[in-house]
Amino acid sequence: MRDVAIIGVGMTAWGELWEKSLRTIWTEAALAALDDAGVDHVDYITIGCMSPGLFVGQEHLASLLADELGMAGVPAARVETACASGGLALRMGLAEVASGLSDIVLVTGVEKMNDVDTAETTYALGTAADQEWEAFHGVTFPGLYAMMARLHMAKYGTTSEQLAAVSVKNHANALLNPDAQYHLKLTVEDVLGSTMVADPLHIFDCSPITDGAAAVVIASMDVAREITGDRPIVRITGSGLATDTITLANREDLTSLPAVRKAAERAYAMAGRVPGDIHVAEVHDCFTIAEIMTTEALGFFEPGQGGPAAEKGLTGHGGKIPVNTSGGLKAKGHPVGATGVAQVVEVATQLRGEAGQRQVEGARIGLTQTMGGSGGSAVVHILEVES
Amino acid sequence: MRDVAIIGVGMTAWGELWEKSLRTIWTEAALAALDDAGVDHVDYITIGCMSPGLFVGQEHLASLLADELGMAGVPAARVETACASGGLALRMGLAEVASGLSDIVLVTGVEKMNDVDTAETTYALGTAADQEWEAFHGVTFPGLYAMMARLHMAKYGTTSEQLAAVSVKNHANALLNPDAQYHLKLTVEDVLGSTMVADPLHIFDCSPITDGAAAVVIASMDVAREITGDRPIVRITGSGLATDTITLANREDLTSLPAVRKAAERAYAMAGRVPGDIHVAEVHDCFTIAEIMTTEALGFFEPGQGGPAAEKGLTGHGGKIPVNTSGGLKAKGHPVGATGVAQVVEVATQLRGEAGQRQVEGARIGLTQTMGGSGGSAVVHILEVES
Repeated sequence: MRDVAIIGVGMTAWGELWEKSLRTIWTEAALAALDDAGVDHVDYITIGCMSPGLFVGQEHLASLLADELGMAGVPAARVETACASGGLALRMGLAEVASGLSDIVLVTGVEKMNDVDTAETTYALGTAADQEWEAFHGVTFPGLYAMMARLHMAKYGTTSEQLAAVSVKNHANALLNPDAQYHLKLTVEDVLGSTMVADPLHIFDCSPITDGAAAVVIASMDVAREITGDRPIVRITGSGLATDTITLANREDLTSLPAVRKAAERAYAMAGRVPGDIHVAEVHDCFTIAEIMTTEALGFFEPGQGGPAAEKGLTGHGGKIPVNTSGGLKAKGHPVGATGVAQVVEVATQLRGEAGQRQVEGARIGLTQTMGGSGGSAVVHILEVES
Repeated sequence: MRDVAIIGVGMTAWGELWEKSLRTIWTEAALAALDDAGVDHVDYITIGCMSPGLFVGQEHLASLLADELGMAGVPAARVETACASGGLALRMGLAEVASGLSDIVLVTGVEKMNDVDTAETTYALGTAADQEWEAFHGVTFPGLYAMMARLHMAKYGTTSEQLAAVSVKNHANALLNPDAQYHLKLTVEDVLGSTMVADPLHIFDCSPITDGAAAVVIASMDVAREITGDRPIVRITGSGLATDTITLANREDLTSLPAVRKAAERAYAMAGRVPGDIHVAEVHDCFTIAEIMTTEALGFFEPGQGGPAAEKGLTGHGGKIPVNTSGGLKAKGHPVGATGVAQVVEVATQLRGEAGQRQVEGARIGLTQTMGGSGGSAVVHILEVES
């Protein structure tokens, strides 16, 4: 298996992008990554996108977007595993380069979510749950995660204040990220006083609806060394995927995320790393409870300790393990297919030492983690900068 | 790069499967392939499916289907490039095994198309065209392919009788395939006398709406040798993908299929083969004109000679290159995401010498070809049996 490196990253400002279409925002991110890498051709394009069919009435993004980029002819593929689609796009590119089938791959993610009304958006997102056994009966994702939160509270004593601490931290981080959807300074009281969506989750416990795209260029290590010059080379040293039952009803325990744990175990084993080795991480905080549960599933904290850790600042700048320095899904935004790729953009930027005001000092090993639905699928990658 | 082999194949009868759901038909095909391979575990599952969001209101098939198969936990991924999604699922599996990231992969395709009404089906299929520049203005796929047919007729003298010959051949082949959707003996007069859909394409020039699934198990050659015993081992020796402009309006020439030509060139180069080496092929006859154009793009016939070749029987049993011995999309059916995988099922079965009444004598090298939309993407694979 060939070693694979990240040689370019790019994204554009995220938000409610009413004046731009899916193809426009995707192309902006792709061109930014190609510019950053300094390459004018790629062998393959992967596109993480959850549901362009339901959000913008368009499938077949492989052809549409290769064409829009001026690269009609180049092999391209869309991949989907709900909100983890961006992470999967990186895995697919990794396999292409590691196998030798491709030398340079443009890995991208995109979602244009605001072009349909709120009911349609809710329906589209609900297709990540079991259509027959969950969505049909009226439950939506805030409800599913609220049930997980309630049980986590009952089992471990997790509090609403601890949930709020995640939101406050991620919004504070987003203040330092010009590409983030929101630039708001929040307090715990602001979160607790905000509209209740699905008890115990307030509106400020929930990630927003976002239009956005992100891209990274990956290459075999040989090609990377030729191209990158004096810039640090970021290697992809670990990659792990896993699934779980799609319905919460079929799980033995709703207070843990087995798919995240399994994906992480695979990634750690491949990289020869343990949780304590990680210096910076971007995780899937679609709801504040999700960040607490994922930091436990990734092994950063013991089960039940994710809430207290957030409250004590262990996941903030200067803490034990800075999490979601980009602002996370909560504050940077969550264009579902793009999220996994944007996580890689952030961690690679941190490892290159180019994160400016958000820089985590001395970060050399980073981790990204996305998940689909209520944890029915998960993708974890470990990135390391050559010292 | 590791060598990769096909060690099991499976599919179920295709048609209008009103009493079965997407998850049911997929699981039947997956279990058939696992049984045929004689394995009870896999490292990864790939799923080609064009639009479960629009056809059955369900995305996140990776989690849904791994769970349904009793394999929750196993990494899984859905891939999409419109009607070529099944071919892409094989490519993704190939990269996984060739890289060493996985040893055994279950490669699958599925589409459940009959659970929505005809208008919704037409809308869903139309998302493979450019939503803003083609579909919005009312053109559907019969219309797009009719334009290609009209120009092919004007440039090369291709006739309606030649188009009909493709349909007659594929329906005759399907009579020998118990899994095919249609078992009809047709004549050229039947085709020419059938309802006109989009001049010059009659209803019998068009592939149908189908529910169906197909699956193959692939593995590294080392694992394949351990498992297959005395059965012939079918290697994947060539794999090529390509894209083209998604809109016909942006193409220089509508009488050829550059994406198919480029994908084929890549697959031939990888396998070290030329078109004349191929003994049996399954190609993407979504419309009869498509089979004529693909047999030209694959290099089996010179441009303009695809029609005469079909009429002379060169693509029939005993001809120069038997094409679509399974019945093809036209008569076996076209559950869009499943088609590319079912092509592999047919060719692998032929190369193993297990095709019964459909057997092409002495077939040792085969080819599969799918395409998305009006040729905006294409996937070609070359399979060879060890002698």
